Amino acid sequence: MAAEHCVVLVSGGLDSATVLAIARGRHQYCHALSFDYGQRHRAELTAAAQVAQSLGACEHRVVTIGIDAIGGSALTDMRIAVPETPTSGIPVTYVPARNTVFLSLALGWAEVIGCADIYIGVNAMDYSGYPDCRPAFITAFAQLANLATRAGVEGTTRFAVHAPLMDMHKDDIIREGLSLRVDFAQTVSCYQADAAGLACGRCDSCRIRRDGFLKAGVADPTRYRSG
Amino acid sequence: MAAEHCVVLVSGGLDSATVLAIARGRHQYCHALSFDYGQRHRAELTAAAQVAQSLGACEHRVVTIGIDAIGGSALTDMRIAVPETPTSGIPVTYVPARNTVFLSLALGWAEVIGCADIYIGVNAMDYSGYPDCRPAFITAFAQLANLATRAGVEGTTRFAVHAPLMDMHKDDIIREGLSLRVDFAQTVSCYQADAAGLACGRCDSCRIRRDGFLKAGVADPTRYRSG
Repeated sequence: MAAEHCVVLVSGGLDSATVLAIARGRHQYCHALSFDYGQRHRAELTAAAQVAQSLGACEHRVVTIGIDAIGGSALTDMRIAVPETPTSGIPVTYVPARNTVFLSLALGWAEVIGCADIYIGVNAMDYSGYPDCRPAFITAFAQLANLATRAGVEGTTRFAVHAPLMDMHKDDIIREGLSLRVDFAQTVSCYQADAAGLACGRCDSCRIRRDGFLKAGVADPTRYRSG
Repeated sequence: MAAEHCVVLVSGGLDSATVLAIARGRHQYCHALSFDYGQRHRAELTAAAQVAQSLGACEHRVVTIGIDAIGGSALTDMRIAVPETPTSGIPVTYVPARNTVFLSLALGWAEVIGCADIYIGVNAMDYSGYPDCRPAFITAFAQLANLATRAGVEGTTRFAVHAPLMDMHKDDIIREGLSLRVDFAQTVSCYQADAAGLACGRCDSCRIRRDGFLKAGVADPTRYRSG
């Protein structure tokens, strides 16, 4: 039973949509999970709901987290601007411990569902240099998961955290997604997308996404706002 | 600078109040953190605010988490009753991955503040058998913390997770707290405390707390509701 189910973190972006498509090929029931954490690009939540439905997730839940109460990121603190030119080091769009928080809640839900497999769309190739997107982080979280839970203690479940895009470049992710019939027009990657989901075309995430479509030789379906 | 600051998880219960008092003896600035996660005993949040103020925390923040969206616990799902007689194994009051979620947010805040020390009031002696209260879990989380963060990657901070009550029995915790002038009358431990903070006297948490005061030979200041 359990192996037919999995939890997939779905942000509404390009990567997690591809991960959901991959997970759907392996599991009959994909439980999609998104977070409303006070992010400035809340349009991604609308995108996440569309993506979850299009790709056949069996359900989609949105957990609210008041992560903006601790601040410290351009994505959750409206007083910090999103950079529109490349920066060195880890950028201010990094949200402290975000993936740890997200995976923790995914773990809790997996335990409630009774499934062992958790999918996350991180990758450490064409990315913003966030520490919680690296292989060592994913491995450490999986170890923690098996100590942190009832299922781990009772030995009924051996949790696995899957990051199938970890070693892929953006153009490869796009090709993979297209082969699995992902409709990237539904996805929103921009850090400062407006309420309608229109992208700025200038932030880190927009640049990485646009370069990906260019390299993949595929028309970019992103809806950019003018000006 | 950073060593003068720390983050302390303060639930409003007896243990975390004692931990805050311990942390105050080591750090000038204790940043107290609580969570509104749809728990049935929300009176503990009022208690947490009182405790934070009484023991001289420099600030107290409450982060909202919609953890009830994933259910699976008697503490967050009002359809599951809190047991009033001892049960075997991990009880239904266990909230899946709760301490992982709480520590993740504490970690994020510590990173924003720029401090390395995180305090949590778990203990593995007189407790309910929750997996995420054990030493191995705390050790694994500290390892994860240093992989999950900007500070960890840049080598500027080596996070430490302190669980000073880990090996203490409840009566020892009570004695320690009293020696540090903790006012336990302010604390709420009951899993089904009412809005005024009155305890049921029958749940696991009430039983462990009452036995602690008895063994410590100290008058129990808990306000029980009648009937």
